Amino acid sequence: MPGHFTFYTEHIEGNLAVFDAHEHRHAIIALRYKAGDPIAFTNGKGLRCEGFIENVRKDSFTAQISSQETVEQKPALLLACGIIKSSDRMEWMVEKCTECGVKGIYFVATQASERTRLNLDRLRKTSIAALKQSHGAWLPQLEEVNWKTLLALPLSDKYIAALGETPGELLQHLQPIDSADRLILIGPEGDFTSEEVQQATAAGYKLLSLGSLVLRTETAAMVAAAHHIV
Amino acid sequence: MPGHFTFYTEHIEGNLAVFDAHEHRHAIIALRYKAGDPIAFTNGKGLRCEGFIENVRKDSFTAQISSQETVEQKPALLLACGIIKSSDRMEWMVEKCTECGVKGIYFVATQASERTRLNLDRLRKTSIAALKQSHGAWLPQLEEVNWKTLLALPLSDKYIAALGETPGELLQHLQPIDSADRLILIGPEGDFTSEEVQQATAAGYKLLSLGSLVLRTETAAMVAAAHHIV
Repeated sequence: MPGHFTFYTEHIEGNLAVFDAHEHRHAIIALRYKAGDPIAFTNGKGLRCEGFIENVRKDSFTAQISSQETVEQKPALLLACGIIKSSDRMEWMVEKCTECGVKGIYFVATQASERTRLNLDRLRKTSIAALKQSHGAWLPQLEEVNWKTLLALPLSDKYIAALGETPGELLQHLQPIDSADRLILIGPEGDFTSEEVQQATAAGYKLLSLGSLVLRTETAAMVAAAHHIV
Repeated sequence: MPGHFTFYTEHIEGNLAVFDAHEHRHAIIALRYKAGDPIAFTNGKGLRCEGFIENVRKDSFTAQISSQETVEQKPALLLACGIIKSSDRMEWMVEKCTECGVKGIYFVATQASERTRLNLDRLRKTSIAALKQSHGAWLPQLEEVNWKTLLALPLSDKYIAALGETPGELLQHLQPIDSADRLILIGPEGDFTSEEVQQATAAGYKLLSLGSLVLRTETAAMVAAAHHIV
């Protein structure tokens, strides 16, 4: 694959790809790519292309596609994560979980969340950067959902990682993901309340244990993602 | 266990624990602990204690131990990691790997390392903070070694995670750690050279694959650690 990065664009039509100002800054300004240079890119939806830079404009550029393949997305891991106070730590989590190939991350305000607002746009940029770096072909879906919607998601392979007294199934003992996505729900700082754990188990979530140590939220998410690297 | 943190001191004699200025700042200044308050702490070498704060001085304090247990350290994961340019990312890695319970991290300058100097003291402080947060009882050993020393370490269960063409054993397929420590060697940005991979395999390292995506150094280390959470 040409270059250290797989570039990203949603605008691919026929054999032509159009890259926006952000990619222009990265490829043309920072890395000094020129017309005629080979480039690898993805649309984040399974399409992986190679081609050559054609027209370089002031804040965009185009590439001609020379070859492409479609990467199938298998059933994979979805994370749902209590919103945490530090946006740095949330960005870090999104970066790492993207590298690990998670399919999506739901952010949910829980009873213990000290913060409930989210800069999804910024997190999405972080995720795109990680996708480019790791040469992935599927951009994780990042979404904000409320607690009720989360519990009602029509998934059957789903777990809640709570710190409470009742030991759950050990992460290391989970079977590989089978024919449908798996959802793992990670608590915020301060953990889930026992009411939330009850609601989740009533909604079909199984208890999951992430080992004997107390993990920070973003570490727990990353540990779950690492166990499902693609 | 009393409180949100397990405090850290190397100075435990009989029933008395003495805490230094750093722990004083955390417990007394930041969290406003007072004489008589319960406190949990560890020496980072398997001793886990509960007790009560006794004397609070200007930049230290003591605690009387009321109960203690020794946590056995089983054979566990050792990481060896190419030194990377960003000290932030190295600190993240140390924090996360401490939370996951790795036994030690060796830092090694490889041919592709753009940086060869290390602030071990700072990394050690990061590790202590993560140990306190995660309520661990064993502080990972952080050590700088050179390449030859690393290859000569008397371990048999050892792997090198290189990006090269030859696919290695999949991390997900590794057996749990058995009767002796396992070492996983992670490359720096720019990966190992093929000469380094040859030297490592000649020294008994097996090839390891961390999946289909290209992971940053600190992500790879964390993924390996996450697969061996204690």
